[in-house]
Amino acid sequence: MAEGQHEERDGSEARFNKLARLRERFQDPKWRRYGYLLLSGKALGLVFLFGGMYLISSLLGSGVHAEDAAPVLKGNDIVNPINTVWTLVAAFLVFGMQAGFTMLEAGFCRSRETVNVLMECVVDTCLCGLLFYAWGFAFMFGSGTPFFGTEYFFLQGAPATYGTSGVSFLAFFLFQYAFADTCSTITSGAMIGRTGFVGDLLYSVGVSGFIYPIVGHWAWGPDGFLATMGSDGNFLPGVGTSFHDFAGSTVVHTIGGWVALAGAIVLGPRLGRKFKSQGGGPMLPHDLTVATVGGFILWFGWYGFNPGSTLSAMDFEGIGRVATNTTLAACAAGLSAMFFAFPKTKTWDVSFTVNGFLAGLVAITCPCYWVSPTGSVLLGAIAGVIVVVAVDVLEWLHIDDPIGAVPVHGICGIWGTLSLGLFASGQFGATGPLGADNSAPLTGLLYGGGFTVLTAQAIGSFIITSTTFAVSLALMYAVNALGVLRVSEEGELQGIDIHEHGVPAYPEYALHPGATPSGGPQFTAGAYSTMDVRVPSSPAYATNRQS
Amino acid sequence: MAEGQHEERDGSEARFNKLARLRERFQDPKWRRYGYLLLSGKALGLVFLFGGMYLISSLLGSGVHAEDAAPVLKGNDIVNPINTVWTLVAAFLVFGMQAGFTMLEAGFCRSRETVNVLMECVVDTCLCGLLFYAWGFAFMFGSGTPFFGTEYFFLQGAPATYGTSGVSFLAFFLFQYAFADTCSTITSGAMIGRTGFVGDLLYSVGVSGFIYPIVGHWAWGPDGFLATMGSDGNFLPGVGTSFHDFAGSTVVHTIGGWVALAGAIVLGPRLGRKFKSQGGGPMLPHDLTVATVGGFILWFGWYGFNPGSTLSAMDFEGIGRVATNTTLAACAAGLSAMFFAFPKTKTWDVSFTVNGFLAGLVAITCPCYWVSPTGSVLLGAIAGVIVVVAVDVLEWLHIDDPIGAVPVHGICGIWGTLSLGLFASGQFGATGPLGADNSAPLTGLLYGGGFTVLTAQAIGSFIITSTTFAVSLALMYAVNALGVLRVSEEGELQGIDIHEHGVPAYPEYALHPGATPSGGPQFTAGAYSTMDVRVPSSPAYATNRQS
Amino acid sequence: MAEGQHEERDGSEARFNKLARLRERFQDPKWRRYGYLLLSGKALGLVFLFGGMYLISSLLGSGVHAEDAAPVLKGNDIVNPINTVWTLVAAFLVFGMQAGFTMLEAGFCRSRETVNVLMECVVDTCLCGLLFYAWGFAFMFGSGTPFFGTEYFFLQGAPATYGTSGVSFLAFFLFQYAFADTCSTITSGAMIGRTGFVGDLLYSVGVSGFIYPIVGHWAWGPDGFLATMGSDGNFLPGVGTSFHDFAGSTVVHTIGGWVALAGAIVLGPRLGRKFKSQGGGPMLPHDLTVATVGGFILWFGWYGFNPGSTLSAMDFEGIGRVATNTTLAACAAGLSAMFFAFPKTKTWDVSFTVNGFLAGLVAITCPCYWVSPTGSVLLGAIAGVIVVVAVDVLEWLHIDDPIGAVPVHGICGIWGTLSLGLFASGQFGATGPLGADNSAPLTGLLYGGGFTVLTAQAIGSFIITSTTFAVSLALMYAVNALGVLRVSEEGELQGIDIHEHGVPAYPEYALHPGATPSGGPQFTAGAYSTMDVRVPSSPAYATNRQS
Repeated sequence: MAEGQHEERDGSEARFNKLARLRERFQDPKWRRYGYLLLSGKALGLVFLFGGMYLISSLLGSGVHAEDAAPVLKGNDIVNPINTVWTLVAAFLVFGMQAGFTMLEAGFCRSRETVNVLMECVVDTCLCGLLFYAWGFAFMFGSGTPFFGTEYFFLQGAPATYGTSGVSFLAFFLFQYAFADTCSTITSGAMIGRTGFVGDLLYSVGVSGFIYPIVGHWAWGPDGFLATMGSDGNFLPGVGTSFHDFAGSTVVHTIGGWVALAGAIVLGPRLGRKFKSQGGGPMLPHDLTVATVGGFILWFGWYGFNPGSTLSAMDFEGIGRVATNTTLAACAAGLSAMFFAFPKTKTWDVSFTVNGFLAGLVAITCPCYWVSPTGSVLLGAIAGVIVVVAVDVLEWLHIDDPIGAVPVHGICGIWGTLSLGLFASGQFGATGPLGADNSAPLTGLLYGGGFTVLTAQAIGSFIITSTTFAVSLALMYAVNALGVLRVSEEGELQGIDIHEHGVPAYPEYALHPGATPSGGPQFTAGAYSTMDVRVPSSPAYATNRQS
Repeated sequence: MAEGQHEERDGSEARFNKLARLRERFQDPKWRRYGYLLLSGKALGLVFLFGGMYLISSLLGSGVHAEDAAPVLKGNDIVNPINTVWTLVAAFLVFGMQAGFTMLEAGFCRSRETVNVLMECVVDTCLCGLLFYAWGFAFMFGSGTPFFGTEYFFLQGAPATYGTSGVSFLAFFLFQYAFADTCSTITSGAMIGRTGFVGDLLYSVGVSGFIYPIVGHWAWGPDGFLATMGSDGNFLPGVGTSFHDFAGSTVVHTIGGWVALAGAIVLGPRLGRKFKSQGGGPMLPHDLTVATVGGFILWFGWYGFNPGSTLSAMDFEGIGRVATNTTLAACAAGLSAMFFAFPKTKTWDVSFTVNGFLAGLVAITCPCYWVSPTGSVLLGAIAGVIVVVAVDVLEWLHIDDPIGAVPVHGICGIWGTLSLGLFASGQFGATGPLGADNSAPLTGLLYGGGFTVLTAQAIGSFIITSTTFAVSLALMYAVNALGVLRVSEEGELQGIDIHEHGVPAYPEYALHPGATPSGGPQFTAGAYSTMDVRVPSSPAYATNRQS
Repeated sequence: MAEGQHEERDGSEARFNKLARLRERFQDPKWRRYGYLLLSGKALGLVFLFGGMYLISSLLGSGVHAEDAAPVLKGNDIVNPINTVWTLVAAFLVFGMQAGFTMLEAGFCRSRETVNVLMECVVDTCLCGLLFYAWGFAFMFGSGTPFFGTEYFFLQGAPATYGTSGVSFLAFFLFQYAFADTCSTITSGAMIGRTGFVGDLLYSVGVSGFIYPIVGHWAWGPDGFLATMGSDGNFLPGVGTSFHDFAGSTVVHTIGGWVALAGAIVLGPRLGRKFKSQGGGPMLPHDLTVATVGGFILWFGWYGFNPGSTLSAMDFEGIGRVATNTTLAACAAGLSAMFFAFPKTKTWDVSFTVNGFLAGLVAITCPCYWVSPTGSVLLGAIAGVIVVVAVDVLEWLHIDDPIGAVPVHGICGIWGTLSLGLFASGQFGATGPLGADNSAPLTGLLYGGGFTVLTAQAIGSFIITSTTFAVSLALMYAVNALGVLRVSEEGELQGIDIHEHGVPAYPEYALHPGATPSGGPQFTAGAYSTMDVRVPSSPAYATNRQS
């Protein structure tokens, strides 16, 4: 026995020595070439062996499968497939928004904090997937209580299709995961540049695993108390209608935006960030190309977000209307933000324009199904103004939100939710797997419907906003109390990318001397030329480090 | 009453003072933390209040909705939904091309004009949306006259589905908006770097609001005179067939390209642009990664552009054929441009290759439905050669087109339109909501069909090209006469980004000394090493090469 | 006759002189303006002429087409359209992965080799299209022999739909082309920075034209010997089941990865690349933003890759399951790679995290149809560990794989293929055009199914891996023997971009002095600040303006 072990040890030593020799030889090009030739020869031999075996053993053919006569299908047999295809394609587009968020956030931040942005976007996406699989989906979309669901943990016990939608259960799961991921990513936007990575992991568990799915259940869960509000025997029966949020102005964007606000408040501003009242202003974005393209990719993904929320292609007029309304609100908001910001900045500002159309997209997300194209233009145009004002208010409050997550998602999410109470056109009711049911249309204040819808929207928005903000503040303070929410001052000065991730995003590029900490030198029209941002080639230029 | 007002004023003063104190305190971290704790406490209290109300008022449950028995659906009931899904997904892809155009144009321009490119792409998209909603769609797709439509202004009076397509009206609107936006963006490509932003807004209204929809009506409107050409009682009945443009080689690309040409001519070249005959050449692109990826995203979006133009998934052979033809033309054109340019540039030129496959995509856009895969390879390969020659011709004419919009879209749009007259394979007729109708196939010259199709194509292409060019020249001269088309010389020297938008695209990056005005230093193979584009950190830094 | 020729020559000379004068005048702004005015006047005149002709000849109207009564459709009539739509949308997404690959490879390489990466991605895509059209598709998906197909060369003789799928033949072609293109692009990843462009063209013909389609036929061809393995009269009937590879862990990723390995071996490492045992490590990526966004776009495209491989939307539960499994494997792998790499690198490494989720995507590609969500999480998590280990092994073997193509695609492709033998859950059988057929489910070892599936997978994976590797080594040695595989040392030192393509990717950016040859300076936490990568603005540097 001992001998056997001894032999084995010997054998393993011999193998180890062989391996070491092999390694040595591998590092010698001549041997390496020889080795690979040998290896390829052996592999070829094996291939011929198998080929030979095949030629001997096979009779070539009989691979024809008899086809059963195809069963006769009715139109109804196509409904679930087509609605599932629609939901899945929409889910893919919503997932694709991650590329857009990553670009938008990375482009709008300083280069020194870019890798951190990239990591947070990737890791939030991964973490959110596992959490939503484990319990997030169960909390949000399982039945159980008016406050949270209690079935489908780890996707156990799932039926073939979700609820009465007829959509494949796992297609619906994927669609909703993509939404949850969006909410989670929005949060990180206002916390760029100073959040420690462990802190990010911890608060992300809180957001993706608890805040979003539980609060979301209230509005979108099968028995959520805001979803059933206003009917007999449910929450506030006197309101007369339930809370409506077609694709998530509140559920996704307000939640994401207000968690972001809580995070930005608890963190405080980045080192070196001077506010307007201190003679400063927002730090400069480091790559406007990346940011703007990211904005376009988000817009592209929104075509999954809003039209996909019908979960039904059979409501084909509905998906067309939602897609067009989404577009028109974005167009109007982009232009209104640009024109409204012009007198303030005296330039045609690209950041405001991009955040403008994003604000329009956030705003139309709630009412997209129930308003007319003209209503969409109006409510979008208002969103474009609101986002510019909200950026100023944050500046005034000395809150550092590097990409404008709070104005775009937090504030315009509220506006969009309320706007339904004003602009619901009185023509459209509910979508469904076989088509629209417009027998009980929603009508807003401006279309003669009185205050009913507006009241329900205000109640829902207020409950969700206030709860989210309170719980998020508690969460952020708790993570902060552990000492991991904010990176050390030393780490922040060094650059969070180097400190947390060991590498800058663009190791090869030489940076302009004014590039820190405000993100770039001051550019005032007339006093600056891009020609100046340039490196002199001269021998007198020696001390490249700050000493 | 006066007292009441006084009180009110007092109250407002008091509120103002409170607010000022609040603001002061907010800027003190201790007070801020305290304030938020208070706020979150209050919010939590509210939440509990609502929760309590809920628990009292609710009876928990009875949320079950009785399901009506589902109606029996026939196959026909699925046709409109599936065709609408197809059209919408295609519309999303075409919209996604905006990300591609933005990247292509931004990557191919100099860094000093990048923000301007970004703004124009975003703003054109927004502006086009509102104009197409207001009257563009009405001019183009409403019935009325052979020259322009007169219904559906502000989308009023729209039926549920468009024409006989069975596609949701607003889905069709969105698809066509994405096309209009493409045309508008093409235009800006040749005018990069010297167009004032107000001038851009003005001419864009002209292009998106009038030129594109009105000229487009001729070919695609329900009663456009080129759409009905060749039949009794219509325009040129003797021609024997109507003008065909499946997805817009002429309507989108030729129009866009020739407006671009008019703009480039009226503007004149950028300051510092030396042409070949002056010993110069095209200014260097500043980011080939962004440009190339933009090219790929355009190719990706083209799968909405061409296959989506069936407006019908029921013609499932047609959409497969169109998608494959589109691909093969692009592949052939990319390679032919690369090989054809090689003797001229002595390098494997990435700009020509990318513009090559784009030229193939533009060319196949008109004939994609009616040609065979083999025909697609041939006509694509020719497009790849044409685009290289056309770049030379523009250089010879001293026209500065920074991204090659005129050769790619303007010239290859014409080639693609004519190529149908040569390559139509005689197998395919018309698509339709229930499937293809190949009873009256188109046959080109090379397939024994004679000159009929070629003649019709030449007439249509000539009328649209000449009209577009003439009207665009007038438009550009008019905007120029207002003094806003071209940015001031001072502004151009400073950099249009700083001048018009107050910020450069990459404020942190140090630029190479040779980076202006030609877009970069001269790179001649053999005389330049990427190692040279670098900042020395010390005089001792000499031996960075392996020696 | 001679006179006629003479006249013609005269005429041509006269024309030439006119042209020369025209050109001269064109270069004079005043004449140019005049010329264009003239031209636009003439064109306008023509327009009015045509308009007048129209007004005279037209009778305005009678454009109403009588609609035939629509035929009555059954559910079955919708099956082929809906499955074709699904396949086409998936094909578009898979094609879109080219944008992702381009970004991933460009971002992970050094800036000096970026243009080469861009060109290879574009040209491989074009080349692969023409080859797949000419004979690749025929070899792979034609019937004929167990080793390669012999029909459909140049797409001749193609029926309307492919096989029994009911999907439009050309839609299926496009889907499979996008797969082939993926395989081809993977290959280039490990060969970045030192492969001559002509060599790239040559080996790409080998990979796209022969290796991928022929080896692929074995597993996916209608009569491939691995596809029919395990049944009576076919290859290895005793194995009891065929080789399964749902979406190509082996067919696409293992093939691509092992060709890449052969290429990297034959090429040897880039100049200046120091391995761990030599005190070095991987060269730094030059743009992590681009690389990470590329990773996300690949993930996005994977939703075409895997769910699309059903070729059937009617199997709507299947496509939902595949999409969710794909997501969960990626999420688990991203996190496991990040956590597993942390003790090694002491940082939260973004490259490992991105390659981690890609490894999960590669692994789930084979088993995605047959495993449960929980199984996907587990096998994905393992892939994330494997990819980190495999990177170390390559480093140990002194193989330079700039983007990790071998670990991600080559190694995790094998793991994914084998994992089916472990994790197949015993619930799912085969997909089909009318829906799933789960009468003969696959069951893996861990679910009580014994070794049958595992054995079949091991045999298939081994045969394909060994053959591919052997043949690729032979191919690469052959191309190398022609002297065109590796760029000259001089060219590599100069920068392959300048040498082969005449231009760097970012001509305007100044590079950091440490940016070569390792791709960037050393960044060790604590010793480096992003603030240091910066250029001082010396007072002597003022007059860079044009004066």
